[in-house]
Amino acid sequence: MEKLTLVKVGGKIVEEPDTLALLLRDFTSIEGFKILVHGGGRSATKVAAQLGIESRMVNGRRITDEDMLRVVTMVYGGLVNKNIVAGLQALGVNALGLTGADMNIMRSDKRPVGDVDYGFVGDVKEVQADTLAMLIRQGIVPVLAPLTHDKQGHLLNTNADTIAGEAAKALARYFDVTLVFCFEKKGVLRDENDEESVIPWLDRAAFTQLTQEGIIQGGMIPKLENAFQAIDAGVKEVIITKASELGKAGGTKIN
Amino acid sequence: MEKLTLVKVGGKIVEEPDTLALLLRDFTSIEGFKILVHGGGRSATKVAAQLGIESRMVNGRRITDEDMLRVVTMVYGGLVNKNIVAGLQALGVNALGLTGADMNIMRSDKRPVGDVDYGFVGDVKEVQADTLAMLIRQGIVPVLAPLTHDKQGHLLNTNADTIAGEAAKALARYFDVTLVFCFEKKGVLRDENDEESVIPWLDRAAFTQLTQEGIIQGGMIPKLENAFQAIDAGVKEVIITKASELGKAGGTKIN
Repeated sequence: MEKLTLVKVGGKIVEEPDTLALLLRDFTSIEGFKILVHGGGRSATKVAAQLGIESRMVNGRRITDEDMLRVVTMVYGGLVNKNIVAGLQALGVNALGLTGADMNIMRSDKRPVGDVDYGFVGDVKEVQADTLAMLIRQGIVPVLAPLTHDKQGHLLNTNADTIAGEAAKALARYFDVTLVFCFEKKGVLRDENDEESVIPWLDRAAFTQLTQEGIIQGGMIPKLENAFQAIDAGVKEVIITKASELGKAGGTKIN
Repeated sequence: MEKLTLVKVGGKIVEEPDTLALLLRDFTSIEGFKILVHGGGRSATKVAAQLGIESRMVNGRRITDEDMLRVVTMVYGGLVNKNIVAGLQALGVNALGLTGADMNIMRSDKRPVGDVDYGFVGDVKEVQADTLAMLIRQGIVPVLAPLTHDKQGHLLNTNADTIAGEAAKALARYFDVTLVFCFEKKGVLRDENDEESVIPWLDRAAFTQLTQEGIIQGGMIPKLENAFQAIDAGVKEVIITKASELGKAGGTKIN
C-alpha cells in the first residue's frame, strides 16, 4: 500500500504567523500523500473573550454551549483552517479545508450528559474514508478542522487528537498510515527537563513499565493510549514529536 | 450538455435560522447538478461590532482592513458556510464548503488602490472549473463562501455576486448553466411597489429601453449588467427571483 502521513498540530503552532509559516514549510517537505489536522483552542479562547464569552474547561476539554459553538465554528472552520489552506496553496500544496460536515466525512453523536455536560461536543461515529482516500489520490491534501456534525444539521466541537486518530484508523484500510502528533517537546522524554532525553521507541510493554515507574505521567498517558489504540486499529506507526522535527527521523515512535 | 443550477443567495436569507431552513429546503428541491453561493455581510457587520470593529462601506462594498479580513474569514468561511453545509447534509445533499483557496478554485488579485482603498478585497482572475466540474460530477454540491485567495498566502474578501458570476461563466464550458440570483423581490419589477409586476423576460435591448425609461434603476442596473455579462460568456440563462421561488418557474429570465 502507498504511504500516507497524517500530521496533527496543536493550536499554539498554527495560531502565530511565524510558527505557522515554519510548520507549513516543514509539512510541505513531507513527501507523498498527507493530511493536516489542526487545533485552535487558544484563538477560540481569545476570540471568545473579545466577544465577552467566557471559556470554561473541564479536564482540559472545552465546555461548548451555543455561543461557544459559534466561536469555534468561526475560529476552527474559518480563521485557522482557511489561513492554513491559503498558506499551503502558496507553497504549491493543493490543500482543501474540511470540517466533518463537508462531504459528511466525519459524523459524530453529541456526547451524552454525564458528570459533566460538555454541551455541543461530538464523539466520532463514522468516517467517510473512501471519500478522503479519493481526494488524496487526486493529489489533494485535506486540512481537517476539529469540528464534526451529527448529520441532523448540527456542528459539534471535537477534539483534534480524536479527529486525527479516527481519520488515521479509518484510512489504514487504504494506506500505510503514519500518524504524527506534534507537541511542544521533541518526543516522549525520559526526563522532562532534558529535551534530549527522547525515548526513541515504545511498545505497549515498555509503555506499561515506564508508566508504572512514573517516568511517563500526566497528559502523556492519554496521548499514548490514543496512539496504541491507533496501532491496534491498523495504523502502521505513530510518532510523537515537535513540529520542527517533521520530515526528520526524530521523535518517539510507537508501534 | 448536462444542466447545472448555480444559486446565489444574499446574507439576509442565510443568517436567520428560519429563512435558512426554508432556503435549504427549496435549494434541495432543485434537481440535477447544483452549486450554492452565499453572502454573509450582515453577520460580518454584527460580529465585527461585537469585536469593536467598525464596518465601513463605500458604494455598498465593504472596506476590508486586516481586522475585518479576520472577521469575514471567520464569518463567511466558518460560521455561515459550515452551518449551510451541515444543514444541507441533514437534507441528504452532499455539500462541500469551499473558499477560493480550497483546491485553489478561485484565485484573485488584491484590488489596486484607486479613488478608494478597499483593502483586502480580491478581483477574480482564475477559476479552476475542471476541479469544480469533477466534484459536481461525483455528486458533490459545492457551497461557495465569498472569499478568494491570491495564491501568495493571502485570503481576500470577494463579492458573492462576483463569485457566482465567475463560477457560472467558467463552468459554462462543462454544463448548461442556469445562474439564479436570489434577492428580496420575486424578480425585476415594473413597479417596485407591486410585487406582482415581475418582468418575466429581458434581453439586452429590453434592458436598455427599460433603463432609459427609468423603470429599471438603482442597484438593479449593475446586477443586470452582471447577468448579461454572464450570458455573453456562455451562461445559458440567468434568473433573478426570490429564494422562495426556487424550483418554480417564476422570476425574471435573462438570456
